[in-house]
Amino acid sequence: MSVLQNDTFLRALMRQPTDYTPVWMMRQAGRYLPEYRESRKSAGSFLQLCKSPDFATEVTLQPLNRYPLLDASILFSDILTVPDAMGLGLYFEEGEGPKFERTASDESSILALEVPDMAKLQYVFDAVSQIRKTINGRVPLIGFSGSPWTLATYMVEGKGGTDFLNTKKIMYARPELMHHILEINAQTIIQYLNAQIAAGVQAVMIFDSWGGALSHNAYIEFSLNYMQKIVAGLTKTAEGQKVPSIVFTKGGALWLEAQADIGADALGLDWSVDIGKARARVGNKVALQGNLDPAILLSTPEAIKKEVASVLASYGNGHGHVFNLGHGITQWTPPENAAAMLEAVRKHSQQYHQ
Amino acid sequence: MSVLQNDTFLRALMRQPTDYTPVWMMRQAGRYLPEYRESRKSAGSFLQLCKSPDFATEVTLQPLNRYPLLDASILFSDILTVPDAMGLGLYFEEGEGPKFERTASDESSILALEVPDMAKLQYVFDAVSQIRKTINGRVPLIGFSGSPWTLATYMVEGKGGTDFLNTKKIMYARPELMHHILEINAQTIIQYLNAQIAAGVQAVMIFDSWGGALSHNAYIEFSLNYMQKIVAGLTKTAEGQKVPSIVFTKGGALWLEAQADIGADALGLDWSVDIGKARARVGNKVALQGNLDPAILLSTPEAIKKEVASVLASYGNGHGHVFNLGHGITQWTPPENAAAMLEAVRKHSQQYHQ
Repeated sequence: MSVLQNDTFLRALMRQPTDYTPVWMMRQAGRYLPEYRESRKSAGSFLQLCKSPDFATEVTLQPLNRYPLLDASILFSDILTVPDAMGLGLYFEEGEGPKFERTASDESSILALEVPDMAKLQYVFDAVSQIRKTINGRVPLIGFSGSPWTLATYMVEGKGGTDFLNTKKIMYARPELMHHILEINAQTIIQYLNAQIAAGVQAVMIFDSWGGALSHNAYIEFSLNYMQKIVAGLTKTAEGQKVPSIVFTKGGALWLEAQADIGADALGLDWSVDIGKARARVGNKVALQGNLDPAILLSTPEAIKKEVASVLASYGNGHGHVFNLGHGITQWTPPENAAAMLEAVRKHSQQYHQ
Repeated sequence: MSVLQNDTFLRALMRQPTDYTPVWMMRQAGRYLPEYRESRKSAGSFLQLCKSPDFATEVTLQPLNRYPLLDASILFSDILTVPDAMGLGLYFEEGEGPKFERTASDESSILALEVPDMAKLQYVFDAVSQIRKTINGRVPLIGFSGSPWTLATYMVEGKGGTDFLNTKKIMYARPELMHHILEINAQTIIQYLNAQIAAGVQAVMIFDSWGGALSHNAYIEFSLNYMQKIVAGLTKTAEGQKVPSIVFTKGGALWLEAQADIGADALGLDWSVDIGKARARVGNKVALQGNLDPAILLSTPEAIKKEVASVLASYGNGHGHVFNLGHGITQWTPPENAAAMLEAVRKHSQQYHQ
């Protein structure tokens, strides 16, 4: 493996000193980039981009090549590769969100779920190896997975949603069935992330995109406890290095204190919370990643710079902050506005690292 | 006007002693009730239910007649009557959410907005008078409005949404235009709620359904400040009685401390927050309304009773709690499960009011 030339992101995750605040953008390889839209057209579909290591490598590198100020790259893939490998049949209809041919939504289909053979996800690990080689040490590569709860919502509903009534009905009426799904998911994700680590990822992130839909008690029992299990099950790299972990519950900023206790190195923040207040709440337990509203990138470079400076000032002096958006970059973002954000982070953050 | 026979709800909003915890359900006159579905069929459409005082009275009374344990009724109407009165042309397409024929989404359409003549909303005030007369003092009648920010999202987008990118683009790039919309909305809502009060409502609620989509700073500037202005502008009843106000920002439990300072009598809570912790955060400034996850009503009477007891125990001893769901009751709720919730509230709450 080539030597890592920029370890700012990894150091920030471990709350070690850095010269500036590192930055990357969730969904940085995405539709807002014309070069990404070209690749997707060539591949034929989003799923083909994910399933072809060549294409996944191509699009993972695109934002790095366009934006030299990025401090990390992230595997191009999708959280739904996992339920797909479980046999639920992921597909996308033109202009709509992801769907599954089969669901795990009654007792028999839920009890039939099994941890899939990781060979079914070999295309992901192949992509990791190829991306890592192609990046050639410029910045670290992040691997990821959905959280057990977030995957469960898709597995039960058969598609994306916002209120998850079928999933919650099972959770409230038959909690033992929900725990069965979550246990299978957690065991699968541990294997999945460890195989990504073996293939070369240098940090991992767990996306709990829908944990915020839960009540405070249900969040702990049905989402956070399973993420804790995953974090505890992560292995080191082949070279014996610890792989830092980031846990991100969108809509979960009320529960940061509980999140800070599960052993993750960093927590992701959406834009609902003032990052300075979040830092005061979690103390020295974890680093923080976030938390600009991605909608700001639709405005003007002046407005963007002002908001970037405000987030950096709120975090304040010291280390342990990875700058990011509070959610994925939207497809309507002018690419030059993303550049304005990255430049503002580099320019305004150095004063806080002296 | 007839004498009010059950003032438990109004007393709880003012944090005065009551014998038990009063309860009502957001969207209690709704599609989960077969008698509501019949009325809607007769009326021809949802909008006709709202625009006909006879139908609005009929459906407002339905849950009261079915559930004698309800302690409040709420005007049957829609938050979008206000932008409709502004000339934007509200309509519903079968199986879809609300839409507007025109939007206020560029400089000229935004600057053309005006506070509408309240005569255009006379059907709402007529419904209030008729409902109040028909309830005949059994329980108080709640009036309501959307918040300025929440209405603005529909006025800019022309429909419902979840990320509000057009609205936020204006907010970040042209904040003065967004403030113009919000100022018009706030002035309109003050007149609208005061006309509801003059017609007979005994409490008012402001639904900030989409305030939770904002960042912490933007929430204060673009949503909360305007709700504060409305609360300050509310008048007393013709008899000189104060009309208690409830402010509810869905997804806004991170910001309760700020909400508690705007002069409202009570705050609505969604299910994300532990109500006991919320109470500790707001102290004696406000009453609290909430906060059962409406998805619980899809499960079993046993699970419902357990969750009701848990919310009541978390609030603990003392007054100032109005039991409710954390959002509107879903159309899939079996009516007998709503009854189980209401019975559990009455049964388990008396011990906390001794």
